[in-house]
Amino acid sequence: MKTAGNTRIGKSAMLLLLTERSEEDWNRHFNELNWSYCTGRIGSMDSQKIVAAIETAAKRSDIVREDLYREMHALYHAIMEALTGVTRGHTQLGEILRTVGLSFSVVRGTPYAQEEEGEWIAVALYGTIGAPVKGLEHETIGLGINHI
Amino acid sequence: MKTAGNTRIGKSAMLLLLTERSEEDWNRHFNELNWSYCTGRIGSMDSQKIVAAIETAAKRSDIVREDLYREMHALYHAIMEALTGVTRGHTQLGEILRTVGLSFSVVRGTPYAQEEEGEWIAVALYGTIGAPVKGLEHETIGLGINHI
Amino acid sequence: MKTAGNTRIGKSAMLLLLTERSEEDWNRHFNELNWSYCTGRIGSMDSQKIVAAIETAAKRSDIVREDLYREMHALYHAIMEALTGVTRGHTQLGEILRTVGLSFSVVRGTPYAQEEEGEWIAVALYGTIGAPVKGLEHETIGLGINHI
Amino acid sequence: MKTAGNTRIGKSAMLLLLTERSEEDWNRHFNELNWSYCTGRIGSMDSQKIVAAIETAAKRSDIVREDLYREMHALYHAIMEALTGVTRGHTQLGEILRTVGLSFSVVRGTPYAQEEEGEWIAVALYGTIGAPVKGLEHETIGLGINHI
Amino acid sequence: MKTAGNTRIGKSAMLLLLTERSEEDWNRHFNELNWSYCTGRIGSMDSQKIVAAIETAAKRSDIVREDLYREMHALYHAIMEALTGVTRGHTQLGEILRTVGLSFSVVRGTPYAQEEEGEWIAVALYGTIGAPVKGLEHETIGLGINHI
Amino acid sequence: MKTAGNTRIGKSAMLLLLTERSEEDWNRHFNELNWSYCTGRIGSMDSQKIVAAIETAAKRSDIVREDLYREMHALYHAIMEALTGVTRGHTQLGEILRTVGLSFSVVRGTPYAQEEEGEWIAVALYGTIGAPVKGLEHETIGLGINHI
Ligand SMILES: [Mg+2]
Ligand SMILES: [Mg+2]
Ligand SMILES: [Mg+2]
Ligand SMILES: [Mg+2]
Ligand SMILES: [Mg+2]
Ligand SMILES: [Mg+2]
Repeated sequence: MKTAGNTRIGKSAMLLLLTERSEEDWNRHFNELNWSYCTGRIGSMDSQKIVAAIETAAKRSDIVREDLYREMHALYHAIMEALTGVTRGHTQLGEILRTVGLSFSVVRGTPYAQEEEGEWIAVALYGTIGAPVKGLEHETIGLGINHI
Repeated sequence: MKTAGNTRIGKSAMLLLLTERSEEDWNRHFNELNWSYCTGRIGSMDSQKIVAAIETAAKRSDIVREDLYREMHALYHAIMEALTGVTRGHTQLGEILRTVGLSFSVVRGTPYAQEEEGEWIAVALYGTIGAPVKGLEHETIGLGINHI
Repeated sequence: MKTAGNTRIGKSAMLLLLTERSEEDWNRHFNELNWSYCTGRIGSMDSQKIVAAIETAAKRSDIVREDLYREMHALYHAIMEALTGVTRGHTQLGEILRTVGLSFSVVRGTPYAQEEEGEWIAVALYGTIGAPVKGLEHETIGLGINHI
Repeated sequence: MKTAGNTRIGKSAMLLLLTERSEEDWNRHFNELNWSYCTGRIGSMDSQKIVAAIETAAKRSDIVREDLYREMHALYHAIMEALTGVTRGHTQLGEILRTVGLSFSVVRGTPYAQEEEGEWIAVALYGTIGAPVKGLEHETIGLGINHI
Repeated sequence: MKTAGNTRIGKSAMLLLLTERSEEDWNRHFNELNWSYCTGRIGSMDSQKIVAAIETAAKRSDIVREDLYREMHALYHAIMEALTGVTRGHTQLGEILRTVGLSFSVVRGTPYAQEEEGEWIAVALYGTIGAPVKGLEHETIGLGINHI
Repeated sequence: MKTAGNTRIGKSAMLLLLTERSEEDWNRHFNELNWSYCTGRIGSMDSQKIVAAIETAAKRSDIVREDLYREMHALYHAIMEALTGVTRGHTQLGEILRTVGLSFSVVRGTPYAQEEEGEWIAVALYGTIGAPVKGLEHETIGLGINHI
């Protein structure tokens, strides 16, 4: 828990979605670092609902303060960057007849050794994208990182 | 090694870059599935070199046949989709004064239960993106998937 | 009917929309090549309906198998590429107050001399784009090509 | 009123939104140049309404002739370019859970010394963009210019 | 030569590239309409050269006046729109390790019945896009239309 | 100097470029607010040089600390957003045969009433964009805003 890899905020956010590590284990991991995180799931043809689900989860988990625009702004741009990876070109879903089923994570922490670098936020997305027909879909991934 | 997760081609490609599992272990994993894969590293301000490095690695590892456009076309579009996740907006690096240091993986396999779905290819990218100054960078991830 | 031009799948798909050649003539042309094709028309402010109309036509004409994701995936990306040519920037219609009236064609065939190159699919779009007011519009064209 | 700056059509359009100069003053300014202009306000999560509000204002102020596609086409592309500056990436608002409150101006005039360069149109946008929550927003600007 | 189709400027520009009609025949066609046109070829990994080749051909053929920005501006945006269809996402060629071999046409004429609609310009592109390796390429098409 | 408008960081950054107010006057304005700012000029066909010129000016004027990635990251994304407004679609200049002559400003300050909102940064761009031929150009504007 002291290796460089452990303080990779993007890697941590992605591994939260890709490995079967227990919640207890993750809690211990992030507690040691004094970082906060949350995870959730959202399936929709509507990009707006994806954004809302992630923002709501981050606010309810006290990862960001919803009354502080500075923090909401940092989170929003991290979500947009992650969504760009998921959609690979146009941040559109139903408008171009496709849908996603995603798990997401948000991690807030201090990934740089230098203390002044302060806090950063990572949003990771992993799931499937495809036609609105069961099975006609492939995997998709996105990661957004921002200073907060 | 028989769980659904094992046949997730995108997840496999990404975990190749994010976990410390031994090469031996990965070889056993992909041999059991009868899939092929390769990994590599490339750092550059020049997108062209990123594309070339991945194409070259995939050709040398016999993951794609370089004389068959069909396969090179499938790989190319998977690389482009992965690069979109990494660049989040414009597939430009040095042109907008940024550089990347990436590890990459290419996996070719049969991720769907139905045999007729045939082979697919996944390209995963993980590393850092930022200013051409050591340390002024954050993590970045991309995944592209295509039928082949 | 033996010239190189005849096996240009993109050119064929576009000429289906731009010339007045009879259906009989086209049938003979594609039968000789052992290729399949369909054409249709769709007008909408809703990109989703454009995608759906083309997918439905291709499925009903047995150009793609709707239960095979591999084929639907190839078609989908070909449609998206054609739509990019039509929209030239953002794959949005009504969202930015414009509408299209399009004729479309889908052609599936073997455009390469080497047999292993296998089958490819072309989606061509031709029509008008403009304000939702009769006459306030100009022509637009798109072509997408993919291996299938 | 004879300096080069006065015939900068884009600068004029933007200053209409950024300074507190009186309407009388602006009227005198544009009358001397024999240019026409209008201003307005629109707040929405729906890009379509932004486009419609600007088009309607320009038509009602006789800046463009609504029965002449040539003029509506020039205006439309100027609006789209201004909207790209406002949205910085994807011309989407509510679809990605954000909203704008904008003031806009449209100016039609002859910004080039050479008479044959004829008339040009500028669309300027200034206001705020952000979450659909009061205060969670920052400023945004866009400018589009086209020959007409 | 009096049908509606003949005054479709975009269709004409595209058919100049897709059919084997003789130059004499095209000259007669465009003379009857009192329109001007030119065609050419350009192969490059460098988008800049594509733009330059089309601009130069249009200037040399007196389709646009090179000393009149109004006309060069109309042509430039038509080229950009055509290039978007050819590149389908990012107007990059060599930067992402791909190259094009294109034939192009530029047509200037009066496609609308109403005289006040004046002159318009169409730029059509047709050729191949792919890896910088002979044969690893597929067809590509683009069309841009603008008032002039 | 106590009106709301004075604390509009984006408007201030843009007015620095659009009005003829004296440097002394601006210094007094920003000193009262306890904000910092700089301005400069850059003309180039190379986006990289635009980014570098703005970053260098901001570092030399002590608006950002060049050894703190957090600050350079905030500045970089603000520059990218401003550049999107200037280029309206693709952040490319010479690659698509166009060039810019820009004046730029960077302002760092506290635009929100609530103290916890902290510091923000605005990058404004104003100038001309066009063909690499004197006079074949029109105005262009961009604004990017970020928390820092
Ligand atoms: Mg960043
Ligand atoms: Mg896909
Ligand atoms: Mg392709
Ligand atoms: Mg322009
Ligand atoms: Mg248009
Ligand atoms: Mg923002």
